[in-house]
Amino acid sequence: MPSPLRLAIAGLGTVGIGVVKIVQTNGEMLARRAGRPVEIVAVCASSRSKKRSADVSAYAWEDDPVALARRDDVDVVLELIGGENGAAKALVETALKNGKDVVTANKALLAHHGNALAALAEANGRVLRFEAAVAGGIPVIKALTEGLAANRIRRVMGVMNGTCNYILTRMESAGLPYDVVFEEARKLGYLEADPNLDVGGIDAGHKLSLLSAIAFGTRVDFDSVQLQGIGSVSIDDIRLARDMGYAIKLLGVSQMTGRGLEQRMTPCLVPETHPLGQLQGGTNMVVIEGESVGQIVLRGAGAGEGPTASAVMGDVMDIARGLRVKTFGQPAETLTDAPPAVVSAGAPWYLRMTLLDKPGALAKIATALGDAGISIDRMRQYTHDDAHAPVLIVTHKASSDDIALALERFRETGVLVGEPVAMRIEEM
Amino acid sequence: MPSPLRLAIAGLGTVGIGVVKIVQTNGEMLARRAGRPVEIVAVCASSRSKKRSADVSAYAWEDDPVALARRDDVDVVLELIGGENGAAKALVETALKNGKDVVTANKALLAHHGNALAALAEANGRVLRFEAAVAGGIPVIKALTEGLAANRIRRVMGVMNGTCNYILTRMESAGLPYDVVFEEARKLGYLEADPNLDVGGIDAGHKLSLLSAIAFGTRVDFDSVQLQGIGSVSIDDIRLARDMGYAIKLLGVSQMTGRGLEQRMTPCLVPETHPLGQLQGGTNMVVIEGESVGQIVLRGAGAGEGPTASAVMGDVMDIARGLRVKTFGQPAETLTDAPPAVVSAGAPWYLRMTLLDKPGALAKIATALGDAGISIDRMRQYTHDDAHAPVLIVTHKASSDDIALALERFRETGVLVGEPVAMRIEEM
Repeated sequence: MPSPLRLAIAGLGTVGIGVVKIVQTNGEMLARRAGRPVEIVAVCASSRSKKRSADVSAYAWEDDPVALARRDDVDVVLELIGGENGAAKALVETALKNGKDVVTANKALLAHHGNALAALAEANGRVLRFEAAVAGGIPVIKALTEGLAANRIRRVMGVMNGTCNYILTRMESAGLPYDVVFEEARKLGYLEADPNLDVGGIDAGHKLSLLSAIAFGTRVDFDSVQLQGIGSVSIDDIRLARDMGYAIKLLGVSQMTGRGLEQRMTPCLVPETHPLGQLQGGTNMVVIEGESVGQIVLRGAGAGEGPTASAVMGDVMDIARGLRVKTFGQPAETLTDAPPAVVSAGAPWYLRMTLLDKPGALAKIATALGDAGISIDRMRQYTHDDAHAPVLIVTHKASSDDIALALERFRETGVLVGEPVAMRIEEM
Repeated sequence: MPSPLRLAIAGLGTVGIGVVKIVQTNGEMLARRAGRPVEIVAVCASSRSKKRSADVSAYAWEDDPVALARRDDVDVVLELIGGENGAAKALVETALKNGKDVVTANKALLAHHGNALAALAEANGRVLRFEAAVAGGIPVIKALTEGLAANRIRRVMGVMNGTCNYILTRMESAGLPYDVVFEEARKLGYLEADPNLDVGGIDAGHKLSLLSAIAFGTRVDFDSVQLQGIGSVSIDDIRLARDMGYAIKLLGVSQMTGRGLEQRMTPCLVPETHPLGQLQGGTNMVVIEGESVGQIVLRGAGAGEGPTASAVMGDVMDIARGLRVKTFGQPAETLTDAPPAVVSAGAPWYLRMTLLDKPGALAKIATALGDAGISIDRMRQYTHDDAHAPVLIVTHKASSDDIALALERFRETGVLVGEPVAMRIEEM
């Protein structure tokens, strides 16, 4: 039997324990598929005495995660600590420098330091893999990097934060406002300690920036991801969008345009007939559009012990089999610096506003839209009981600049009540 | 620059020409991603003078495909001829014996000879890859073999014949009977020369048998796939199933049960709320359920020049990058012989029949069902104008044996008009 692949696990939270369980339960199967045994040698976590749902007493214990990276009896370090700096970063750097391969589930670390860490891995002849960092159990990194490697990628889209999708679909199904469902989600333990990582789109934005690098051969550029969270999405918008045949999702979109690399993680309307529009609850979905392959849709659990551990172990199995892929699918030094697209490409937009109920109000809005060079696809004015008339407009294709101009003109009309809402409609 | 990977293409039909276009159009991108150039060296097709949508005059021409496998200047042979025997088989065998890696899109070849060919590849230290043989552009072989390699697979399901799904969805949307839509499909060129390969479920059954081998580590056993085509699906059944919340699909299901390996490619009812139930037209979908990962859904084009060429080239890119995976994910000699499950596992069933409109008819049917040990979940009798009453029953879980017994008892009641229809409801 060939030599075993020896793992060290840093972090024994949900994911780490999930990995332990897979190795303990499925050892024979893993060895048969990999052609060699896969063993856990050493572990590390913040508390040794903590009660855990798997027995780790058979493994060497380190109090310091970085010590795992220095052990002679370790081939692969699994970084399951989290956080963009601190112990996670020190561990990954030390492991790569010490000739260990690294598997991580840490999207924040790679979104901020992925370029340098990929280069470090390659300089040391090691691999740094991160399937679990994006869309949980869905093997999307593998699909994009390998399976679709012969495609010029046109667009990558994704619903990649299950908590946000849970909140948005729950708002609609229960008819509850954002604040109430947000509190529900907090009580259910669905939110990060800093909820803005979820509802502010940051976590999903991290993931999008990693997909962009692979898809377009560009350096990871999280800072250029246009971020907008779901806190401003109202139950009214969800209902009105549905009335027009759309669902509202926190949708990540990455595409290379004539204006540069466009990366957005914002609430968007998507057709309710498309799989993205039908996605309920905490499930994740990634859509990849390639020149040859057309549109590929991948759906699965985006978080949780089993799915995330499955993805971590998928990377481990690759390493055990000798399948060694560059972090972003090509040498880090060949990734290019794409200028970020400041203005997003043209799309239809959903505009909702409330107008003073007086003669000529709607005409003023229509005129303002025309002045901004935007034509109207559909417009609805809803019945109302007070002096305020809710108006909904779906435009023909317009750039984000055009829309910003139109909103400015709307404000100048003097017929608006409150602020207008504008959301992009992502075409499929 | 490292040495180029040199390809020979056997077969310049839709897929072969698609591959030529990708290599000609995206050479720089492929080289950047693979770390080496990917070149076409030689080609072969039945007619050299045929007009083609890509120029192949720069490549060496062979009249005999097997000659490609003997060329010293070739690293990988792409078998895009098709057919389970003849030239395709001779080419693959010769290529492997001559030290060439092989990429094929040929599901029939592998369904019938996959075990022997995988062993031959391994004996010669070569790889034999077939992403394009299953579900077109969807990288499902890669997902199942590699990305989900740490999962004990519970069930694999798929809608993997676009023509059948086109026919079934078109019957419903246009309200047309099977025969009419079949003729439409024939005129549109959607059907194989032998239509039974499509509508008889054989083509999709081939694909299912390959997924089974990977999922369960079993030898390819196409002969044990229970096949039933879509020719017996009526527009009435499609409508009545919809009325109960289901869509009818030609669904492949593979699962390891206490009774052995169950492989079915039959018309089934699936919940209309599940992505499988929502799949329209010629699109393919594969659903993989793993112990850790839960349910993963993959959706994309199942045929066509671009998608199929994308999958072929995905395998080529793996080889170019040095990613060498066993044909079925583990050594061919370690694949086990699983006994085929003759009786399928318990599931709810859809039963439709027409009864003589006389007192006690329905009671006799209900009694017969009870005698067979089957309980009723839902039953509907529809209004009718003549002496025949259409009755629809959804049962609780029952085995295929129980259902066969119940149908026999139904016939004995003497109240049936014509033959009853029974279709399994696949739970998600």
